Amino acid sequence: MKNYIVHDEWNIIETGFDPALNKISESIFSIGNGRMGQRANFEEHYSGESLQGSYIAGVYYPDKTRVGWWKNGYPEYFAKVLNAANWIGIDIDVDGVPLDLNTVEVIHFQRVLHMQEGYLSRRFGARFSDGKEVEVEAVRFCSLVDNECGAVRYRITAKNFSGKIQLRPYVDGGVRNADSNYGELFWEPVSKHIGARRATLTMRTKKTDFWVATGMAYEVFYGGARLSQQEMTIERDDYVAKSVSVAASAGQTVEIRKYAVNLSSENHPKSELVNRAEQLLGHVVVKGFDRLLAEQADAWALKWAESDIRIEGDIAAQQAIRFNIFQLNQTYTGEDDRLNIGPKGFTGEKYGGSTYWDTEAYCLPFYLATAPRQVARNLLVYRYKHLPKAIANAEKLGFSGGAALYPMVTMDGEECHNEWEITFEEIHRNGAIAFAIYNYIRYTGDTAYLAEYGLEVLIGIARFWAQRVNWSEARKRYVMLGVTGPNEYENNVNNNWYTNTIASWCLSYTLDALSEVQQSATGQYAAIVAKTALQASETGLWAAIIDKLYYPVDEARGIFLQQDGFLDKELVPAAAIPADQRPLNQHWSWDRILRSCYIKQADVLQGLYLLEDRFDIETIRRNYDFYEPLTVHESSLSPCVHAILAAKLGDEARAYQFYLRTARLDLDDYNNDTEDGLHITSMAGTWMSIVEGFAGMRVRDGRLYFSPMLPKQWQAYTFKIKFRGALLTVHVTPTRVNFSNTGEQAATVHVLGRDHEVGPGSTTAVPKYEHVR
Amino acid sequence: MKNYIVHDEWNIIETGFDPALNKISESIFSIGNGRMGQRANFEEHYSGESLQGSYIAGVYYPDKTRVGWWKNGYPEYFAKVLNAANWIGIDIDVDGVPLDLNTVEVIHFQRVLHMQEGYLSRRFGARFSDGKEVEVEAVRFCSLVDNECGAVRYRITAKNFSGKIQLRPYVDGGVRNADSNYGELFWEPVSKHIGARRATLTMRTKKTDFWVATGMAYEVFYGGARLSQQEMTIERDDYVAKSVSVAASAGQTVEIRKYAVNLSSENHPKSELVNRAEQLLGHVVVKGFDRLLAEQADAWALKWAESDIRIEGDIAAQQAIRFNIFQLNQTYTGEDDRLNIGPKGFTGEKYGGSTYWDTEAYCLPFYLATAPRQVARNLLVYRYKHLPKAIANAEKLGFSGGAALYPMVTMDGEECHNEWEITFEEIHRNGAIAFAIYNYIRYTGDTAYLAEYGLEVLIGIARFWAQRVNWSEARKRYVMLGVTGPNEYENNVNNNWYTNTIASWCLSYTLDALSEVQQSATGQYAAIVAKTALQASETGLWAAIIDKLYYPVDEARGIFLQQDGFLDKELVPAAAIPADQRPLNQHWSWDRILRSCYIKQADVLQGLYLLEDRFDIETIRRNYDFYEPLTVHESSLSPCVHAILAAKLGDEARAYQFYLRTARLDLDDYNNDTEDGLHITSMAGTWMSIVEGFAGMRVRDGRLYFSPMLPKQWQAYTFKIKFRGALLTVHVTPTRVNFSNTGEQAATVHVLGRDHEVGPGSTTAVPKYEHVR
Repeated sequence: MKNYIVHDEWNIIETGFDPALNKISESIFSIGNGRMGQRANFEEHYSGESLQGSYIAGVYYPDKTRVGWWKNGYPEYFAKVLNAANWIGIDIDVDGVPLDLNTVEVIHFQRVLHMQEGYLSRRFGARFSDGKEVEVEAVRFCSLVDNECGAVRYRITAKNFSGKIQLRPYVDGGVRNADSNYGELFWEPVSKHIGARRATLTMRTKKTDFWVATGMAYEVFYGGARLSQQEMTIERDDYVAKSVSVAASAGQTVEIRKYAVNLSSENHPKSELVNRAEQLLGHVVVKGFDRLLAEQADAWALKWAESDIRIEGDIAAQQAIRFNIFQLNQTYTGEDDRLNIGPKGFTGEKYGGSTYWDTEAYCLPFYLATAPRQVARNLLVYRYKHLPKAIANAEKLGFSGGAALYPMVTMDGEECHNEWEITFEEIHRNGAIAFAIYNYIRYTGDTAYLAEYGLEVLIGIARFWAQRVNWSEARKRYVMLGVTGPNEYENNVNNNWYTNTIASWCLSYTLDALSEVQQSATGQYAAIVAKTALQASETGLWAAIIDKLYYPVDEARGIFLQQDGFLDKELVPAAAIPADQRPLNQHWSWDRILRSCYIKQADVLQGLYLLEDRFDIETIRRNYDFYEPLTVHESSLSPCVHAILAAKLGDEARAYQFYLRTARLDLDDYNNDTEDGLHITSMAGTWMSIVEGFAGMRVRDGRLYFSPMLPKQWQAYTFKIKFRGALLTVHVTPTRVNFSNTGEQAATVHVLGRDHEVGPGSTTAVPKYEHVR
Repeated sequence: MKNYIVHDEWNIIETGFDPALNKISESIFSIGNGRMGQRANFEEHYSGESLQGSYIAGVYYPDKTRVGWWKNGYPEYFAKVLNAANWIGIDIDVDGVPLDLNTVEVIHFQRVLHMQEGYLSRRFGARFSDGKEVEVEAVRFCSLVDNECGAVRYRITAKNFSGKIQLRPYVDGGVRNADSNYGELFWEPVSKHIGARRATLTMRTKKTDFWVATGMAYEVFYGGARLSQQEMTIERDDYVAKSVSVAASAGQTVEIRKYAVNLSSENHPKSELVNRAEQLLGHVVVKGFDRLLAEQADAWALKWAESDIRIEGDIAAQQAIRFNIFQLNQTYTGEDDRLNIGPKGFTGEKYGGSTYWDTEAYCLPFYLATAPRQVARNLLVYRYKHLPKAIANAEKLGFSGGAALYPMVTMDGEECHNEWEITFEEIHRNGAIAFAIYNYIRYTGDTAYLAEYGLEVLIGIARFWAQRVNWSEARKRYVMLGVTGPNEYENNVNNNWYTNTIASWCLSYTLDALSEVQQSATGQYAAIVAKTALQASETGLWAAIIDKLYYPVDEARGIFLQQDGFLDKELVPAAAIPADQRPLNQHWSWDRILRSCYIKQADVLQGLYLLEDRFDIETIRRNYDFYEPLTVHESSLSPCVHAILAAKLGDEARAYQFYLRTARLDLDDYNNDTEDGLHITSMAGTWMSIVEGFAGMRVRDGRLYFSPMLPKQWQAYTFKIKFRGALLTVHVTPTRVNFSNTGEQAATVHVLGRDHEVGPGSTTAVPKYEHVR
């Protein structure tokens, strides 16, 4: 837990330079535009602790896995998000001495992430050992408009001396991943193209042969005028720099504007990469830094118009929720169905930057409600395109007949993860992918999606579950053996209630979807049945499994059991664990954790959250009361589910507590791991805690249901919801809820047992609500 | 499965050279003397596929582990048996061309392991590309008498030419482990001492700082006379060779005798290593090759007198059992309580060469019955000495108060293994270590061992079990959660019957041992109670656990359940698995194996074997009938237990089948892995299959019980048993069993319900027995 970020409504502010916090700040102040991302590394050379990170969406490397004890079925490779060529770099020498915040005296320092306008700025004063002082102001961003482009404006002022300031903007492809398993270089150089005040370096990844052309152009200004003096070129195979010198007078400022483009062979023919990079460079140079920055602010204003949440009376909470929304929008823009949301987005290498079930279980609701329909849809299409690989993955494990097991971790559909208890057993991910289809259609009403893409995925998933259960002669029930549920502090258990429940739900929904498509799109139905070779015997088996699947319960307590044998554990509330033993995963041996009753993240409660309409409120309450005290929330994905259920059950204090646990997770470095990157996917959980938790938003029958509460720490809050052509601003105050619709379609909102129609351009106030759900 | 070893009663014979089999033969033809071991690598350079292996007992290296996903509690290092300096090497050039079986034409080739006399010989004829032919005969052994010494006699005959034969005997310390995790060199040079016709190279291991001085001396003979011409010395930091040239006439033989010594700092002060190596070299050179070899044959004759098994009418079986006994005696001689028995002995690197529960569960009975009492005792003392580290190991996992968890794999008492489901969960190893104490005392009558060493170990183990179980409020019983039983095809199960059973047995035996020591050695008892700070509350708890421990059973079938939930599996006999899917561990994904009912190695049956006196024969039969068909025996340690139970139950055909499965495991490379080294520990299981299986030998009340059967494939068999001063030769024929006693004490044998006293020097025949047990 740190507390160095200055609280502010729209900005993330760090004042003063502490090298020990630098890697944390590098994560927090990351910028991105869905196509590329950049940690808040310094432009000028820094010899202190730093995790360099420039990431290009969709460009990855299959690193040879490192496994102590190989198990049949493991993949050989782990696809990793790649640290790509450094495009921000501008080395600075002052009278021949490098400017390096690790060696000079830092007089003052401030870093600001301007979330409203979407750029990062940094200002500092530095004193060299010979007493020379400089003042620096650096601004940069990844353009949302020209999303293959980034720009840097770097101003250096000679405060108390006249002297030579040398600037060396460069592109460096000789970069490594810090998490490379065998210390290998993942990139190799292809070509360099060097012109006046510009250069393009093309690198390729080994094995995957992604090509990325990184071009840069720059302009130097002094005394308000663009300079055009001689430059020197410095090259290596994987590096190109330009060096210019400016004789600066005391009090004067040298400014360099650096434009960079990153073009990937994912989006351009390899033969055209360099040409197009140079064209794009020309285009952005002509626009110029100021116009690019103005366009950036306009583009972000549009994003905020659709996704902002305002919290009145709590600046820390306000800053936190905007930070989370900002980072989610920097990570995924939904324009490209080959991309997805890594757990760390573009802010670090950890977890390989690949896709987990986080996307479907936690991120989808945010994008559904705050972005055009296409954005959430592309997240679904991403999985549709990976269906053949999910089938191949299941075949590797011994399944057949088109059964699909989506990977635990992936870049391109292939499984990357090598931990048998997770790779092979944390199969509930399949359920999240099916549920996302349901959730998307429920929200958008886009029923055509089923016939177009959804049904094939559902059939593959249903087939998997049907093979994954087995008939227990002893129980006269189908059982599911050897799984790991959402709670990863249990491994290889039998009949995890959540997994069994979501499996059965998948089978039901697939049967429903089949009959819906059969009725609404007969031709497409026939084509899908033919393509998937679906047999009547299969759907018959699915119905039988739904009918005869076993669920562990404790009749006495009236609760569902997380898994077979859960009650054999010693049940001691997590509150009894001494503080110095928390988090457990840093203090207890793995076997002690496994044998304990402590729950890493919502498991039974995750099921009650997703499928709440199946359960009455007292059932939910009993399970919540039983499991909540045993949950240690050592996954950042846990508190949001508890917050939503707490709010539903009227436990306002607890709901607020859980909200707090995620909201400032990264800003305050709660888990001591922000330096590895931000917890991007759990940020969506924070959004859910407000919208589905405090405001109690649900979608039923094409209408939005609300059941709002206002945490007593807040005066009011406001959030935006896009829903079927409506754009609602929901304003929750102590005395009423206001709905105003700036969209094109009317929406029906249901509050306190009553429907309210909110027409386009109109506002509806629901007064003096009570907490009723 | 291969079938290239020629069947012979006393020799292992390979005829003809097939490079594809070379690594297998390198394992099979390994030599050793308990202090050092050597794979059957060639003396002369060989550029083909080979696994070089020279091993010095007790010298290991803690290699940095390679783990994909770290778990709290894992050790950082894996101590590995080390490939040490090559001492057998003699490079040969013929008129300047290297003799290398990978490049010359091999005219004929034969390798013979002379088990009766304890040496390896090799003979071959080779033709160079220019038509020159040589005939080679090489003999070598690791001396049992001078057990830091090995000797090589290498004869090369110029068949059809006169020319220059150059010989370069060398010591090479620049060796690597093939299984090094990060390709590191584990050795570094300390010093070289070079004299006339001798040289000593001292290397040290990194980190552990073991020093090993490897000295060599040589003599060259030609035409029957020792030569004394000039030699040349070739050196590098980690290598020293001597080069001599002999002008050989057609038909004449050049002979080199190379003597080598390996002295380790485990046994000598570092400052004395080189001196003592040179003294020892002098000693063995004076003895000379022929006398060393004669002494070797005499020493082996003694071993055989105490451990031979003769099988009449089945040469393949005869060869196999002698091979197993030979290798066991080569691996462990029991003179040093710091040493133990690696799964591969001195024949390969796999499994790190460290100590597993194999020692106590499978090897101890062999050494108990075929070697002086001290040998088995030293195996126990080895664990006693590791008790502090076993306590530290348990503390690392969160146990306290002197609870001891012995490691899964170790060299020096520290855990080396990193696979959570085994490292932390395969805890029944603790039971095997306690049982070995019981077994040793039952066999030898050495009750003083308890007070001297055994009781402290038992207390540590009992404390572990008492903390490892927990009270289940739901069952009102103690339960044991999260274990892996002997059957490693199940992981992280609850209430593994075998583990619960052996745990409870440990608690009972510890309580018994406490009262026995209290009565028989009151002073020592008080000292142990004080040293271990044993509390009355502890023994009270142990009794409560014994009383209230839960065991999974199937009442309907009248069987013990391998673990909770076992009956939820689909129970399909292993015989139904298609042959092309066996072994499962090479064809099925790990999760499929885990979910299946198939058993890697005896689990419930292991418990029935160890504790057979607790169960009636019908209980044993029901469990055998249930579990045997589900067992795939994919551990080499499995069939022996099934063989013994099958014999006990009168299932002679099956008993013989199981025996066959292990007896020639390595000779016929059943599992396609002999090239990695021999399955040393499972060889003891083969011995058990005959003695405890076919002959039904048991120890009860200080007497030997027999219940012999004779497989119909054999005419008769004979084995030796050392028992409390008696040395029995047990000869089983179709019509009678003969017992003759060449020891110093009488023994009582119990056959067919009657005791027979067999006095020293006397013979007793029990006629015409029936199968009664």
